[in-house]
Formats: sequence, structure tokens, C-alpha cells
Amino acid sequence: MEAGFVGLGAMGQGMARSLLRAGHRLSVWNRTRERAEALSADGAAVASTPAEAARAGVVFSMVSDDRALEAVVSGPEGILAGLPKGGVHVSMSTIGVELAERLARRHEEADRQLVSAPVFGRPDAAAGGKLSVVAAGPNDAIARVLPLLQAMGQKVFTLGEEPARANVVKLAGNFLITAAIEGLAEASTLVAKAGVDRGRFLDVLLDTLFDAPVYRGYGKILLEERFSPAGFALPLGLKDNRLLLETGERLAVPLPLASLVRDRMLAAMARGYGDQDWSAFARIAVEEAGLARGGQAQAG
Amino acid sequence: MEAGFVGLGAMGQGMARSLLRAGHRLSVWNRTRERAEALSADGAAVASTPAEAARAGVVFSMVSDDRALEAVVSGPEGILAGLPKGGVHVSMSTIGVELAERLARRHEEADRQLVSAPVFGRPDAAAGGKLSVVAAGPNDAIARVLPLLQAMGQKVFTLGEEPARANVVKLAGNFLITAAIEGLAEASTLVAKAGVDRGRFLDVLLDTLFDAPVYRGYGKILLEERFSPAGFALPLGLKDNRLLLETGERLAVPLPLASLVRDRMLAAMARGYGDQDWSAFARIAVEEAGLARGGQAQAG
Amino acid sequence: MEAGFVGLGAMGQGMARSLLRAGHRLSVWNRTRERAEALSADGAAVASTPAEAARAGVVFSMVSDDRALEAVVSGPEGILAGLPKGGVHVSMSTIGVELAERLARRHEEADRQLVSAPVFGRPDAAAGGKLSVVAAGPNDAIARVLPLLQAMGQKVFTLGEEPARANVVKLAGNFLITAAIEGLAEASTLVAKAGVDRGRFLDVLLDTLFDAPVYRGYGKILLEERFSPAGFALPLGLKDNRLLLETGERLAVPLPLASLVRDRMLAAMARGYGDQDWSAFARIAVEEAGLARGGQAQAG
Amino acid sequence: MEAGFVGLGAMGQGMARSLLRAGHRLSVWNRTRERAEALSADGAAVASTPAEAARAGVVFSMVSDDRALEAVVSGPEGILAGLPKGGVHVSMSTIGVELAERLARRHEEADRQLVSAPVFGRPDAAAGGKLSVVAAGPNDAIARVLPLLQAMGQKVFTLGEEPARANVVKLAGNFLITAAIEGLAEASTLVAKAGVDRGRFLDVLLDTLFDAPVYRGYGKILLEERFSPAGFALPLGLKDNRLLLETGERLAVPLPLASLVRDRMLAAMARGYGDQDWSAFARIAVEEAGLARGGQAQAG
Repeated sequence: MEAGFVGLGAMGQGMARSLLRAGHRLSVWNRTRERAEALSADGAAVASTPAEAARAGVVFSMVSDDRALEAVVSGPEGILAGLPKGGVHVSMSTIGVELAERLARRHEEADRQLVSAPVFGRPDAAAGGKLSVVAAGPNDAIARVLPLLQAMGQKVFTLGEEPARANVVKLAGNFLITAAIEGLAEASTLVAKAGVDRGRFLDVLLDTLFDAPVYRGYGKILLEERFSPAGFALPLGLKDNRLLLETGERLAVPLPLASLVRDRMLAAMARGYGDQDWSAFARIAVEEAGLARGGQAQAG
Repeated sequence: MEAGFVGLGAMGQGMARSLLRAGHRLSVWNRTRERAEALSADGAAVASTPAEAARAGVVFSMVSDDRALEAVVSGPEGILAGLPKGGVHVSMSTIGVELAERLARRHEEADRQLVSAPVFGRPDAAAGGKLSVVAAGPNDAIARVLPLLQAMGQKVFTLGEEPARANVVKLAGNFLITAAIEGLAEASTLVAKAGVDRGRFLDVLLDTLFDAPVYRGYGKILLEERFSPAGFALPLGLKDNRLLLETGERLAVPLPLASLVRDRMLAAMARGYGDQDWSAFARIAVEEAGLARGGQAQAG
Repeated sequence: MEAGFVGLGAMGQGMARSLLRAGHRLSVWNRTRERAEALSADGAAVASTPAEAARAGVVFSMVSDDRALEAVVSGPEGILAGLPKGGVHVSMSTIGVELAERLARRHEEADRQLVSAPVFGRPDAAAGGKLSVVAAGPNDAIARVLPLLQAMGQKVFTLGEEPARANVVKLAGNFLITAAIEGLAEASTLVAKAGVDRGRFLDVLLDTLFDAPVYRGYGKILLEERFSPAGFALPLGLKDNRLLLETGERLAVPLPLASLVRDRMLAAMARGYGDQDWSAFARIAVEEAGLARGGQAQAG
Repeated sequence: MEAGFVGLGAMGQGMARSLLRAGHRLSVWNRTRERAEALSADGAAVASTPAEAARAGVVFSMVSDDRALEAVVSGPEGILAGLPKGGVHVSMSTIGVELAERLARRHEEADRQLVSAPVFGRPDAAAGGKLSVVAAGPNDAIARVLPLLQAMGQKVFTLGEEPARANVVKLAGNFLITAAIEGLAEASTLVAKAGVDRGRFLDVLLDTLFDAPVYRGYGKILLEERFSPAGFALPLGLKDNRLLLETGERLAVPLPLASLVRDRMLAAMARGYGDQDWSAFARIAVEEAGLARGGQAQAG
């Protein structure tokens, strides 16, 4: 199948490669052209604008935030300008619910279709085609792009015809990760100050009720305090948290645990951890208890 | 091996049966004698006091809280009075760190040994010998009782020689369960108000990063709002939360997520959910968002 | 002195009248013209656009939010189009820091001056010329408009040359009001459930350390549960809270107490209190403790 | 009038002197005798036990915590042993509600009367007879001791016949102080990071809605970061917070703002501020925002 791919960052790159590997023909675009050219070796054509990439009738976008998505969608060189009538734009970025709703309307008014299909997984999962995809949008549009989504994700969950719902689920999922991180941070700080080895504690957790990738992965990161290099940088995590809280405000849903995580992330920013992994906010729980890195008590 | 077992509630009963099934000989005691007698059919001898149950030289206790444990340990009819010099008392209740430290000292001063060995698992796991046990205490004492612990638990984790450490780990583990519940409650309330089916949302979670018993089990309870009958009643959950916060205070560890859970639990008590499962505090997040049971919006 | 006044809501009306009373000549504009005409009896000229009101060289604006302010400032009929070069725009609305900074730049680039001068006080204080004004902006601009500010406010505090600083102080002040309300709500709920008369408790507070208008005023509102009619509606309070949290995010300042108030306000919105006074979020603390209005315990 | 006074710490000393100054005859006792002897110059008789001090038929106690109060009340040398039948014990310490209820019962069973009469005010107010007293207990007992209470406090509030109610009010009042401190800490951190002078901000507050001793006093302490010497030490503040939260738990009242203060205080303890004034927990808000003392930004 022929398609366009807009946005070749750490995630997009791997996703585009998964599509190529599955035999699809891609026209790719990236803000810095080098990253697009790097894909020509794999058979991708390099488009000079998002509009050009969208011409195939199906186009994927995977960019860093709301603003970046608006930039590649709008204007004479944007996706909407190039996508033929009846075409499908699959938006895979983690964006806000409000933007998703707005874009859905704009696509519909222009006789194009928007599918929201954000993903769970880090760059290595993207490269291996092992993402989990949550997709929402018009049924026929989803049916049309399903084979492509399956090339990128080992699992594709569909959530009905309103694109924004997929974005809510993605934001809620990311929030649950931060909830698990904060829980782990508080719990291991307590046991560490009580003299228990934190690694041993993690073993107990992983061997009982908490045998899940989220605890396994972040438990290890927290234990080893391996926050650099950032798999997913703190400012991006803060952005997702803000989008979640905004959704909560629109829908009148108090989210005190998300508010707690927000304050942790801001404290982490204030302490200069902005270039670390988003899970570095776990350091605040540790430091507030007077523990230095490695779990030792600091001088008062 | 010969041993005593004190406390035959929903958990203790199953644990004692697991020991009998493994061929150990038990002398059992319970505050209400009927429960002890119910075990004679399985071959247990009924003791008339905790002291008598302790005479075998190894005695297990599994009672509801700090006060109940003090009651069965102390006095002329208590465990310490009956346990022979050099004997081992394995305390399996979820109790506070302070009491664990105090009891450890009292046992040591009396030339007896205390092993703290609280468990993870609900009554069905207790009945099936499938608990997870976290044990701490003198090495020789642990070695002596290990075969018995293994009869009750499919996994036994040892955590060093200070009994109280096992209690900290147990409290921290219970806290992490409540953290997961609060996260689930907030996240599913948000997606529900956004129009997403909560069951579908749970499917996505369980099929991605959150594929763990804690999300599977409590996710189902929350989805079906099946808080009665209580597997573990709310007041007991509140007690464990208090013991955790007390430990945090003793060690100067701020635990804001645990504080949040505390306030949720108190709100649940105030609304009359005190006879429901401890996870019923999840209802507060739902109700604060103006959703009635089943996820429908309430009139204002 | 001659000046324009844009925005004649509950606050702006009283402020304009204070200016007229002090002998200043006003050209007034309001989105719904009737409110402007109501002021002609007091000697005001009715302008047909914000631009026309701004022609006098000094213009005040007092509108409901960021969006409304942008609307009256921009475009061919906006304040910036009518204000002569060297003119001063005194923005008195409670707006966000980002907008204040943006508008300051736009005024400067256009050789106009922006003074930010938000106020503390309710409509009755506005009508009586008894507001407290916090002003920031270029020194000469402030000097020029000072007599007019003094006609509206019994106290005028200047905060330096960066307009946005006045907005931060206003938001921080409003936040402190909500902090006092939440404190009062929790404290009086506790004493009420302990059997203490809440009015008696308030007497003690007001007669000791808490003898301040904020406790006196809101203490009375909470005691009498007199949340309607709204002096300042809940959605506006929520807006100010959001602007505060946004400022906290920009400056990397965690604000957990403000986050708590946010969640209370959202719960109040979800329960249908959106048309009540902003202090109605105090009802959440009361209801979470299982107390009905008037401080009686509800059935579970 | 003749009376006994037990407990001559920073507060008790001043209170006893106020009684002597008003012409009452006192028999005084303190754990370290020197402090009692220091009062003989003022005309006090030195008692050798609390029981002896209680013999006059009216006795006041002012000690540091629940445990200290139990120690001076109980045993053969305690207040209850010395107080004649029909005598009145006026307990002025800040203690927990549970202890107050327990003591009230014990006094009643022994045909003695307990009046709970905790005070608001620092040592200088105690010395000057300018405390605020909140008193609850049997009407006749209060009537009997009223002249003495009035010698110590410029204001005496009565709260009915159940002694524990006065203790709840005292704890709730102390909580409101901490709520104001946390509010001030967050608000001034925000304005400081926005470039506003914190002293100027405090001026604005004190000149508007927040013109109250609590903001004036603690605003100054926070501004000058004058946390040593401690007027009231952090561990005592933490104790009062714990007593408040315990009362909340008994009555099923969630107190999220008090929980927030708790975590702040624990963080302050962990950072080694345990010998500073209780308001030193305000430093946590400042430090979490990356500000060093004096409001300057720290290196990351």
C-alpha cells in the first residue's frame, strides 16, 4: 500500500521502518531533511512538504506536540492541503483532546477523515513493530488503514468513531505510568530508610502482585537511578500531564494523583532534571526524605 | 513437625489447613473456640490458651491488628508464657513497625526468637498454600521454620535479621496496591466521562504495560463495582494505611500519595462504605466527578 | 482628566462611576451597549468602539478574561488602534502572566504603554472607590494615571516596571483567599463533627489570630452556606486558579495547595455548583465528611 | 484564690506569674525543681509532687504532650491522688481528643472535675496575661475557675460541658495557622520567582484582605527566614498535626490540607530542621522551587 509519513523523530523513524519492512511504499517528510533522507536507503521517497507526503491518500503523522501537529497539518504545504478528498490522516502523536476534536472537525468539513491512533511503547518497540496502538475514527477509515497500523503495532485497539477518545485513553495510560512511578518512589524510599535493600524490595513486588512491565521497567530505572539518557524527556512528560489535567478540567474530573505528579515534575524541573527521563520526578520523593542518590541519608 | 497456630480468621484458617495438609501436627487456638474445633476434623489439637499452643516450641500467630497480637502474646496465658526457651514465634499478622520492634526486644530478652513473616494474598491464596511470604528474623530461627513457611506460601522472601523490616515491606506493598487502585479510579473516571467504555479501557491497560495481578484483580472489582462482600474490609485497609503513615513519620519520610489514599478512605468511611472491600475508596474519585454507580453522570 | 473605560460589568461599572465622581471625563464602551448608556446619566460619553474610547490617550479596561481582553485590544476597532502614540492602556482585569507579557511587548512595539493594575475587592468596593490596586508598568505611565487609580482604589501599590508582575501578585492574592477558604472548610467540618458549634468556632478564630477580612467575610459565607447569588462565580475562580497554576508551570514552582483547591473546584463543578460563588468549593470538604448542609450528618 | 500549677515550661511559667500577679496564691510543681524555685521569689510555694500542688482543690496543668500529662495526673504522686473530692483540674496543654475524653471519664468516676482549657498565644502572651483561652467542662467547674482563667487570658471562650471539644478547637486553630503558612510559602515563592520583592508582596497582603496577626507574624518570620530560635519547635507542631489527623480519622473527616502540611513537616524533619520553629516547614515550598534561602535561584 502507498502512504505518507510525517515526523521522523525517535518514534516516527522506527514506525516508518516497520511500514517499509512490511512492504508498504512510503513518502516521508521531516522538518530536518536529513532524517528523511536516512530512510531512502530503506526505499522511502523523500517528500519536500507534508502536503506532498499526504498525496498518497493515506498519511501518518508522529510529531512532538500540539503545536508541531498544527504546523504540519495547516497552511499551503500542510497535510490537509495535500491529502486528496476522501483521504485519511492517521494522527499518532500524543496530543490534547481539544486539538483532536478541532482537527476532526476540520478534516470532516474538508471531506477528509481523521483517525487518532496514539501508541504505547518506547523507541525500541517502535523500531520492532511492537507498539500497542489505540485507534478511534470513522469505521471505514480505520478499516482502510488497519493493515498499516498492524505493521507498526503488535496490538491495535479500536475505540469507536470519535478520534479524541483514543487521545484520552493514551493520556490516561501515561498518567497511570506516572502513578506507578510515584508509588514506587514513595514505597522504596520508605523501605530504604527502614534498612531494607531496595533491589530486594523490587524483587518481592515483581514476584507478587506487581509482575507487570510498568513496574519491571521503571522499577529498574529507579533502582539504578539511570535517568540519563532520557528515553522520554521530563518536559514531554510534563506536557502529557498538562494535557491530562486540561481534559480533567473540561470534563470536571478532579485528578488529585495527577496533580501530585504535576508538582513532583515541576520540582524536578526546578532542580535541573529537565534533560533527564520523565521518571526522574521520582527523585523528589527520595530527596524529600533526606536521602541522597543511592539511598543513603544526607547530612541535615 | 509440631507447631502451634494462634488466630483462625479467614486467613489463619487457610494457613493452618495448609500446614496440616503438608503433614505437620498443629495445636490451634482461636478467640472463639468454634473455629478451632472446626479444624480438629483435619487433625488439629485444640489448645485452650495461646500459651498452650506455643508449647510445641514453634508457634504461628495470625490476628487482625496490633492490639489483638499484644493480647495473644502477653499475660499468663499468652504465647510468651507458653513458648519454651529457644522457641520461635512466627508473627504473620500485618502489624506496625513499632510493635514489631518492641516484640522482637521482648522475645530476645526472654531468650525466645521472633520471626516477622507477613503475607501477600487473599483468603483463597491462604487456603491453597499460595501466599507470598516476606520473612525477617534471626537466621537460625528462619531456617528452622522455613519448611512450614513453604507449606503456606509458594514464595518465601527473606529480608535479613531484623523482624520489623518484613513488616515495613508488607505495609509498603499494601500501599502500592492502594496507589494502583487510586490511579485506576481516576483514570477510568476520566475516560468514562469522555465517553470511552471503561471495560475497553481496562482491556487496553491489561494488554499493555499493566499486565499484572494488581490491575487485573482490582480493575475487575472497580469495573463491576463489586465491593461486597469485602475480601478485605475498608477499616482494615485504613489501619494498614495508618501503620504506613506512622512508619513514615518515625523515619521522616513524606508519603503524599499515601496521604491522598488516607483521605479517600476516610471519605469512604464517612459515606458509609465501612463494611465494603477496602478498594471501595475508589468510589470517591468516581463520585467527586459527579458520576453515579455504573459510570453515569448524576444530576447536579 | 479625560480617559476611556472599556468593560462595564459588575466591577467596571463601579470603577467608572468612581472616576466620574472624582470629576474625570469618561468615554465608555461595553459589549452590550445598554450598560454604557446607563452611565451617560452620570456624565459619561458613550463610545461606539474600544478604539474610540481609547482616543483620549488614557484608557482603562476591565473585562472577564484573557480572551475578552484580547478581543477589546486587537483589530481595527480595538484599543491599540484608537490609542494615540504615547498613550497609556491600564489593564485592570485578572489575566494570565503570559498574556500580560505579550500585551506589554505589543504596546511597546507600537509606542504605547501598558500598565497592569488588577484590583482586590468585590463589586461594592468598586462602587465605593475602595478597591486595592496593584500596579506595575513604566514609571512615567504610572505617574500619569495615578490620580485616576486613586479615585478607584483607597490603596495603590506599585510593583515596578514589568506589568506582568502585578498580575502575578493578583493571582497569588486570589490563591491565598482560596487557601484560607479550604482551611476554614476543613477545620469547621472537623469541629462540627466533634459537636462544636461552627459559629462559636468562627468567633474564636476571628477574636484571635485570624482577625482579618478574609476570614470574617468567607467565614460568614461558609457558616451561613450563602453561596448564591455569586459575588464572584465559581468558573471565574477556577479560571484564576488555572492562570496561577500555569504561572507556576512556567516558573517551575510546585503549588500543591493550589492543586488541592483546583480539585475541590472541579468537584464542585461536577456536582453542579457552577452558578454559585467561588467559595462554594468549600462544600466539598463538608460533603466528603458525610455532613449535609447545615452541618448535620447524612445517612450513609 | 488558692490553686496549684503543674508544669513551668516557657508557657506555664508565664501563666503562673500572671496568676500570682493577680493576687492568687499558688503551689507550683515542675519536673526539674529549679524552675519551680524560680517562682518562689514571686510568692509561689514549691510543691514536691503534682499531688501536693493539687491539694488546694483547684490545679492547673500545662505540659508538653499527652504522655507528660498522663505522667503528672496518674500514680500516687499525681494530680488525681492529691486533688480533693469535688476539686477541679484545669488541663491547659494541647493534647489529643482521645486523652481528653479518657481523662474526663477518670475525673468524673473519681468525683473530680476536668476542665479542658488550651490556649492560643506564644510565651510572651503567656507572660503578659494576654492568652486566648478556649474552655470546656462542667458549668460549675468553669464558673469556679473563671477568675483564674481571666488572669491568664485576655479572652476566655467557653465551649460547653464536654472538655474534649476545647481540645478539638485548639487543634483546629493550630491547623489553620499551618494552612496560612503553607499558603504564604507557596504564594511568596511564586511571586519571588516572578521577580516580585517578597516584602512588597507581604505589604500588599497585610494591607488588604489578610490584615491579621497570623499573616503579620508568620509573614515576617518567613520573609526574614528567622526560624531560630524556635518559638514553638517543629516536632511539637508535628505532634499537633498528628493529633489533628487522628481526630479526623476518629470522626471520619478527610483533611487533605492537613495531610499536605504533614508531608511538608516530615520533609523539614528529614532535612534537619527539627530544632527550628514549626513554621520552618515553609522552607520546603521554597526549596522545591529551586530557590535557596533569601529567594535566590539555586544551581540545578
